[in-house]
Amino acid sequence: MNVIGVVAEFNPFHNGHKYQVEMIKKLYNPDILIALISNNFVQRAELSILNEEDKVNIALSMGYDIVIEIPPQISIQNAEVYCENSVRILDKIGCNIQVFGAETEDINILDDLIDKLKDEDIKKYTSLGHSYNKACFMVLEKYGLSKYYTSNNILALEYIRAKKKYNLDLSQKIIKRVASGYNDETISNNISSATNIRNLIKNGKNYENLVPYKSSKLTYILEKEDMIFDLFKYIFLRGDIDSIYDLSDELKNYISNRIRKAKNYEEFLEISKNRNISINRIKRIMLNVILNIKDVSVKEIEYIKVLGINKKGAKYIKNLDFCYVNYKHIKEDVKYEEFLNYLKVKKTLRNSIYREDL
Amino acid sequence: MNVIGVVAEFNPFHNGHKYQVEMIKKLYNPDILIALISNNFVQRAELSILNEEDKVNIALSMGYDIVIEIPPQISIQNAEVYCENSVRILDKIGCNIQVFGAETEDINILDDLIDKLKDEDIKKYTSLGHSYNKACFMVLEKYGLSKYYTSNNILALEYIRAKKKYNLDLSQKIIKRVASGYNDETISNNISSATNIRNLIKNGKNYENLVPYKSSKLTYILEKEDMIFDLFKYIFLRGDIDSIYDLSDELKNYISNRIRKAKNYEEFLEISKNRNISINRIKRIMLNVILNIKDVSVKEIEYIKVLGINKKGAKYIKNLDFCYVNYKHIKEDVKYEEFLNYLKVKKTLRNSIYREDL
Repeated sequence: MNVIGVVAEFNPFHNGHKYQVEMIKKLYNPDILIALISNNFVQRAELSILNEEDKVNIALSMGYDIVIEIPPQISIQNAEVYCENSVRILDKIGCNIQVFGAETEDINILDDLIDKLKDEDIKKYTSLGHSYNKACFMVLEKYGLSKYYTSNNILALEYIRAKKKYNLDLSQKIIKRVASGYNDETISNNISSATNIRNLIKNGKNYENLVPYKSSKLTYILEKEDMIFDLFKYIFLRGDIDSIYDLSDELKNYISNRIRKAKNYEEFLEISKNRNISINRIKRIMLNVILNIKDVSVKEIEYIKVLGINKKGAKYIKNLDFCYVNYKHIKEDVKYEEFLNYLKVKKTLRNSIYREDL
Repeated sequence: MNVIGVVAEFNPFHNGHKYQVEMIKKLYNPDILIALISNNFVQRAELSILNEEDKVNIALSMGYDIVIEIPPQISIQNAEVYCENSVRILDKIGCNIQVFGAETEDINILDDLIDKLKDEDIKKYTSLGHSYNKACFMVLEKYGLSKYYTSNNILALEYIRAKKKYNLDLSQKIIKRVASGYNDETISNNISSATNIRNLIKNGKNYENLVPYKSSKLTYILEKEDMIFDLFKYIFLRGDIDSIYDLSDELKNYISNRIRKAKNYEEFLEISKNRNISINRIKRIMLNVILNIKDVSVKEIEYIKVLGINKKGAKYIKNLDFCYVNYKHIKEDVKYEEFLNYLKVKKTLRNSIYREDL
């Protein structure tokens, strides 16, 4: 039985995602196809542009049998934490195949990159003040391999590492991405990156040809950056922000010295970024503080939230007792829910998650 | 040397306050007259209607030599905490006379009330589920004395108790209030209660004849109740609200069971109040949670913030080394400041607090 899992953000779902489903069906004959998705909070530590309900409905209508949530405390962290925990969830829910997109199709090349990226070599550069990603790039540059250090390959490397680390019985398959990079803004064959589509949406431009559904039916979450900054700033200065994930005392001081000088989100990122600290890391720490995410939360996976299933999916999932279909009673979940309420982002709590196609 | 202290809210300063200053000058010949005031946060756990700068300027122009802040963690608490700590501050800054307004001028009657209000008798009623104030009223009713249990007499009782408790060398003088009660809405001799004036301001009505200054010069802080509720709700549900002042585990559960049912401030108060828990207590707990006020903060007075002085006041205060005139460096203060910023309430941090008359 082929239980195939795909880790994705669908921010938003686009023709590239549809192409991936078609390729999976053609190449790997799935009995059950599972999407493990970032729900309201994505890896860039931003709100997902698509409303949860729309996102889940689209995934089901496009051929997924089960849609599961990457716990938000994980979905906003760096590639290592995000990928490692996602792969562990896939394993936990019985996937024997993981499919992911990458710029490089040949898994041997990726294995080689992992061998070359030795901790001690990376440390040589991080100790000079370079960020982790920059240090990796510099290590690979010495071998003439830095051209492979691209945004989706970075995630792919982490998926492969996680499989090895936990010695999982999971076959990993790569489908080469058609659009050439995560941040790519060119359009080919009506397949474009999510970044490009988000920009079109934000600018009120047409992108109907880039997505496999009627965009007029969708609800987008508008930018809430300044509300997020104001709340972060207040909670940070209110005190008692101990044991927040990735917020060392040093970083706390660093932020303390800057936070009151910034008038808004953008200004704060501008004055906080430096060679050591990426903008994404600052954004993640902001959400970690607001959402009171502590060390422990990203290390343990206690429950799995099923966001959507079709009948085939329901039959499969009923044997997994840690998967909650009705999760109103998950206490940990309240703060995420409440943060969306605070931002006036509507999120529907469902009693039943059976859904019809769009 | 007569150093006279008055504890007040000036919310807003009105003709009754002016009358009090005139009476003090006539009766007690002050060498130094000190106003110890609630600054941005008043005892009903609300924002003060007057901008800090206006409030301090008015007090100085009306004859006070020194204006000192009741620390906000104290200024929002119940009568006992508010009065006890205020009297201790008056003592600490060298006052030998405290003057306060009350409905009853005869201090012997107030002393008698204190004798009658025995803890064990009060407990008989609170154990039946009555609030502390209601229980006191019921005790006094048995002696036919409940007519003296009025809003300003309640504060007066606490001032007198505090003096006795700490055995302070402080003479306490009462000036009978002209308006008959704190909540009184009738107007006599152009003296009206602050409550009445606030209502006039909120309703855009004229009250020029009730205050001793040009009201057109003043900046009012508009109501921010729903912003306060949204922030409270988020911080409460975010978790980690331990050791908050007056928030027992029982009360935390009580609030947990109600908070998500309320859409706004008013609704929350409505569904939270009961015979045991007054609306003011709920409002205080909301601010205690938002401002992260813990047990310890209301028990210790570590510094005293001077908000305004004239030259005579400056000469007096320079011998008190715990009085800060420039308090930009008081770390504890940041969260109060930041809460006002969050609410978009402008508060001027001053380097120099010398002021001219209005």
